[in-house]
Amino acid sequence: MKFQISHTDKNSKARAGEISTDHGTIQTPIFMPVGTAGTVKAVHQRELRDDIKAQIILGNTYHLYLRPGLEVIEQAGGLHKFNGWDKPILTDSGGYQVYSLSKQRKLTEEGAKFTSHIDGSKHFFTPENVMDIQRIIGADIIMAFDECTPYPCEYDYAKKSLDLTHRWLTRCCKRFDETQSKYSYSQTLFPIVQGSVYKDLREKSAEFIAEQNCEGNAIGGLSVGEPAEEMYAMTEVVCSILPFDKPRYLMGVGTPVNVLENIALGIDMFDCVLPTRNARHGLLYTQQGIINIKNEKWKKDFSPLDENGTSYVDKEYSKAYLRHLVHSQELLGAQIASIHNLAFYLWLVGEARNQIMAGTFMEWKNKMVKQLDVRL
Amino acid sequence: MKFQISHTDKNSKARAGEISTDHGTIQTPIFMPVGTAGTVKAVHQRELRDDIKAQIILGNTYHLYLRPGLEVIEQAGGLHKFNGWDKPILTDSGGYQVYSLSKQRKLTEEGAKFTSHIDGSKHFFTPENVMDIQRIIGADIIMAFDECTPYPCEYDYAKKSLDLTHRWLTRCCKRFDETQSKYSYSQTLFPIVQGSVYKDLREKSAEFIAEQNCEGNAIGGLSVGEPAEEMYAMTEVVCSILPFDKPRYLMGVGTPVNVLENIALGIDMFDCVLPTRNARHGLLYTQQGIINIKNEKWKKDFSPLDENGTSYVDKEYSKAYLRHLVHSQELLGAQIASIHNLAFYLWLVGEARNQIMAGTFMEWKNKMVKQLDVRL
Repeated sequence: MKFQISHTDKNSKARAGEISTDHGTIQTPIFMPVGTAGTVKAVHQRELRDDIKAQIILGNTYHLYLRPGLEVIEQAGGLHKFNGWDKPILTDSGGYQVYSLSKQRKLTEEGAKFTSHIDGSKHFFTPENVMDIQRIIGADIIMAFDECTPYPCEYDYAKKSLDLTHRWLTRCCKRFDETQSKYSYSQTLFPIVQGSVYKDLREKSAEFIAEQNCEGNAIGGLSVGEPAEEMYAMTEVVCSILPFDKPRYLMGVGTPVNVLENIALGIDMFDCVLPTRNARHGLLYTQQGIINIKNEKWKKDFSPLDENGTSYVDKEYSKAYLRHLVHSQELLGAQIASIHNLAFYLWLVGEARNQIMAGTFMEWKNKMVKQLDVRL
Repeated sequence: MKFQISHTDKNSKARAGEISTDHGTIQTPIFMPVGTAGTVKAVHQRELRDDIKAQIILGNTYHLYLRPGLEVIEQAGGLHKFNGWDKPILTDSGGYQVYSLSKQRKLTEEGAKFTSHIDGSKHFFTPENVMDIQRIIGADIIMAFDECTPYPCEYDYAKKSLDLTHRWLTRCCKRFDETQSKYSYSQTLFPIVQGSVYKDLREKSAEFIAEQNCEGNAIGGLSVGEPAEEMYAMTEVVCSILPFDKPRYLMGVGTPVNVLENIALGIDMFDCVLPTRNARHGLLYTQQGIINIKNEKWKKDFSPLDENGTSYVDKEYSKAYLRHLVHSQELLGAQIASIHNLAFYLWLVGEARNQIMAGTFMEWKNKMVKQLDVRL
């Protein structure tokens, strides 16, 4: 993996760059649609590529490990071959899902024991086997196994957890270095900064992570319920320490406003379930603000879904039609809204990139953040 | 509406023709995907047009009347404008759904009282208002209001019901003739032959329906549970009486084998929920037979979904991937399987047409019906 910064913004920490992987290049800043179980929910791979213009998608190690399972993915020749997406893929480490989805889990120095949310079967994730699992899944970018602390989180717990995450990282790096890609392309490992909302812990973690000298770095444990201002404060602290010349990935973030504010702080990569999950509930993100398509006011609004939208669904379907589909719980409603929202997120980061390149980013960003949260 | 027969088969009653409507032409024999509430479930309009190559779709009057309701559809400028499908549409009369979906319904000479399956609200369908409703929905082909008898059905009930359906038809035709299309294109009314599985009732009904001199005719009350042989026997009786030079529509039929056998008996138009409903449960129709994609045998079958398939999903996705999606209840599973099955049905009727034109229909049909029901 290579990362080249094309332009840095004079009025902020924003940067425009390009990540090169064996599955193609990614122009940053970038948003990565979440493809939980090897599928971005309700969206065809063709639509991801041609209509949404996704450049990289995410897979969840926890979900893929449980179903379809490693044997199937390995025999397919890795996740790219299995799901037919031949651009870059990033997998998370499964740590977050072990805590958020599993009914029973127990954390020890060795790793995390948990029961499957699907069938109650028992499993054990360790830093070592999570590296092995991600070798088998075969994502271009794989993530270290960490503990994602909740919010709020006591200082003492956050500190202890951070130390564990760091010890686990050392084991992750060792295992990663001792093993090789199973397929014909290379993989790279991103470590994750933790430390909850505590500045000193975040600094300590960012320094430790920077020392690993990985090809890219991530920030975890944010967007878990803390006020946006705390998130931005932590991002700022961490970005001031993480190496400038390597991509920075802010995990699980966020709303369109969160994305723009964090780009201004020096973040290059984002992922979030918001655009797809909210799509399935009829919430649409647009340049003018947020539309709850279920509202009565759209019932007889036969104007295109989004006049300024960049995907074909924005012109082909009306607001009134989508409202009807969502109200009727028709699958096509989720499909249309998911394409719209993801295309909007990809437009947003692409336009941020254009503005950075043109030297007009902050002016544009400040105008946009006022508009994006408006309820239409 | 115009109907022109291009070729008739020498060894059967099969015919290849072309129906012209103000929304374009339909090559027969044709299968019409069912778009219940103004959407063919899980399928984009673009996919219907470009990948499935649908020439006409169905809408359900009962569903559309309840939701989004006539006010919305009328203000949109009719169903085509509302859902963005600008090729021909056919609407059923709602009679079938009143009996199959509504929790409470009462039949009188005047019409059918029923309660909505959505919110329990009370409604009343009559031959007259069902014509008015279909004028507002604005389908190119609209259907008479009838009673669809169940199977099995006592002779006396079938006879009484048939007489009521005929009296209702007279009222439908009167109202249809007294009213005009609300939009800038013409509509045509198809009457429906009933009579359960009783030859004399079917003959009587077919004669009455033929006398109405409508531009096309339909056969209802079949594919409701009777053995296939009884269905074919009734189709044969009715087709021998219905005018040769008008399209014949067999409602709610059926499996791929049912479709081919009825084409051989002189049917031109079909609709059925099987390809879409079964798709959502992982059942795929192919030239080689039926695949239950949930079965263990497909777990590590990474071959394309259907080597002989005509739509892009057949090449882009593997059997193992679709199996994973269906098992995981991912929306994309329903989407892929629905496109595959509908594209297969459209291929099937298109190929039947080619074979009729080439004079090789019966040989091909007899070979196909042996294969299509095989469980793979």
